[in-house]
Amino acid sequence: MGIHPNVLKNIRHVTPYVPGEQPQRKVIKLNTNENPYPPAPGVRKVLEEFHTDALRLYPDPAAELLTEELARFYEVEKEQVFPGVGSDDVLSLCFLTFFNSEKPILFPDITYSFYKVWAELYRIPYRCPKLDKEFRMNRADYYQENGGIIFPNPNAPTAVYEELEFIEDILEHNRESVVIVDEAYVDFAGKSALELIERYDNLLVVQTFSKARSMAGMRIGYAIGNKELIRYLNDVKYSFNSYTLNQLSLICGAEAVRDRAYFEKNIRKIIQTREKAKGELANLGFAFPDAKANFIFATHPDYSAEELFLALKKADIYVRHWNSERIKEYLRITVGTEEEMRILFDFLKHYIK
Amino acid sequence: MGIHPNVLKNIRHVTPYVPGEQPQRKVIKLNTNENPYPPAPGVRKVLEEFHTDALRLYPDPAAELLTEELARFYEVEKEQVFPGVGSDDVLSLCFLTFFNSEKPILFPDITYSFYKVWAELYRIPYRCPKLDKEFRMNRADYYQENGGIIFPNPNAPTAVYEELEFIEDILEHNRESVVIVDEAYVDFAGKSALELIERYDNLLVVQTFSKARSMAGMRIGYAIGNKELIRYLNDVKYSFNSYTLNQLSLICGAEAVRDRAYFEKNIRKIIQTREKAKGELANLGFAFPDAKANFIFATHPDYSAEELFLALKKADIYVRHWNSERIKEYLRITVGTEEEMRILFDFLKHYIK
Repeated sequence: MGIHPNVLKNIRHVTPYVPGEQPQRKVIKLNTNENPYPPAPGVRKVLEEFHTDALRLYPDPAAELLTEELARFYEVEKEQVFPGVGSDDVLSLCFLTFFNSEKPILFPDITYSFYKVWAELYRIPYRCPKLDKEFRMNRADYYQENGGIIFPNPNAPTAVYEELEFIEDILEHNRESVVIVDEAYVDFAGKSALELIERYDNLLVVQTFSKARSMAGMRIGYAIGNKELIRYLNDVKYSFNSYTLNQLSLICGAEAVRDRAYFEKNIRKIIQTREKAKGELANLGFAFPDAKANFIFATHPDYSAEELFLALKKADIYVRHWNSERIKEYLRITVGTEEEMRILFDFLKHYIK
Repeated sequence: MGIHPNVLKNIRHVTPYVPGEQPQRKVIKLNTNENPYPPAPGVRKVLEEFHTDALRLYPDPAAELLTEELARFYEVEKEQVFPGVGSDDVLSLCFLTFFNSEKPILFPDITYSFYKVWAELYRIPYRCPKLDKEFRMNRADYYQENGGIIFPNPNAPTAVYEELEFIEDILEHNRESVVIVDEAYVDFAGKSALELIERYDNLLVVQTFSKARSMAGMRIGYAIGNKELIRYLNDVKYSFNSYTLNQLSLICGAEAVRDRAYFEKNIRKIIQTREKAKGELANLGFAFPDAKANFIFATHPDYSAEELFLALKKADIYVRHWNSERIKEYLRITVGTEEEMRILFDFLKHYIK
């Protein structure tokens, strides 16, 4: 018989984001920008010592353990930190909370594909200024009237990083809009916009535990901004789901933040491997914008990206490829371990004669 | 200087739900309907054996481990199960996905307070038929034109349970609307509406791990319904945040579902304590609708609920009280351990001469 047409009529139909493949077999997995190294060693200890009886109780809705540790790490007040279930949860809540103007929000045409999905989901008008041929944002595009601005820095999937002077210029031209800088990959790049927070009360910086902190499996992200913006975010969160981060996310997340030395070492290793990989790619004839994330966005003049993507996949090496306008000749290659990159380049050297 | 008025204008202002207090001191905590007993013993083992290195990877976005275990438990197909970060996450997503009509959705005037908050958050029109004096729903109220229906069974905070014949009658009169039965407390009550799913493709049943499964701290909830409704829910979820349940929720949740014997024993103990507590309350002169959840909604003819609430709190016994029309003379008392209830009744016997 099927569902009644009037039921169907009232259902919100969306085109879902398709996440990168999570193959069940053992493969060289360079397709979802995960960190190749394990989380801080203390995380294991914290889990081992956890008293599971406590699970019968709700977690702390304010997630104080984690917000305090993050506040200490970033030298802000805990009321300036808003944690969520991955930066996707935090960003989606930011869209719902801050982007309620009739004017379109602005984000680049080539960027994290969730922005468009959230805008459509919440029926927020949006406009997408085009990146230039080098995949750089044109700052003047962000001087036009808008209902908010969001972009990643470094951008995804291009790995292009803009200096703080660029961010500050956009903030300066948009005192009447909330500007969100999505810094999922900033630890691999350069300065964070966090240092601008004191001066710009319209700035929100969003970061994640999924990349530099090696904890994609734990789902933790956070926004940092001025207390008033964070309070509005909390109000919406408390009306949604008071208890979002579970007890284990709180204790493991806090422990990971405590270990600054491990965090910094982990980042250094990945940057080192990335710089080496850039050299190898260049030698093979690939072109790419200077990569400042834990991935490289590369194209080859003589081989179609789709062909390379499929050949790599056949060899159990997974990278990411989108069949979209302007980027279909590019592969996004996550920086893995030295060993994983060696296998990748052994294959490519053989394939690209 | 403060945030620019144009920024403030575009912020979504909501009145957040205020969750029950989570006191940091050791108190008799009968205020948030948590389970007084620990989760299934296997959960501890699963955590101990977990290889933390895996946390560097994203969790399975389809949460297969958990949906398969739930499908086995409830004898449905895994495509009929939608898991989320607590039933609040699942319910909120249901509002967003299914309640997009111009017509008002319907839910009782006295019920889980989040329904109103979500409706306002998503700007869904709603109407709240009044419960009768015994806090029962009048079925005819749900025959009117609507854009969807939601109610808990047993209802909260009243603990009143409606038989399946009542649910089926509402389904029968609403073939053109999605009807959501929120069964957070059903395991303490009677039959679940799950057995109606085959016959009503407009029915969604939502349950949680926070009550009968003793895992409020883990944040797991789920909806079960026909595959098509579940697919729409997944589409919206994948456009929100592909990876919601973290790896530990998946393995601990699956383990808890496997242990049916523990689950049933846990429920039996709580029901036993509840039935005894009803006798004690009646002896003390309290009146209450027949309680079918893990809490009792009680009023006393000679003592104001607020007075009792504050006196109990002073004695480090936390129960829940709302200063709202129609229910301000009631206390919601969670069923704790035998020992916790003894302490509660020792106090009340002394207080109520």
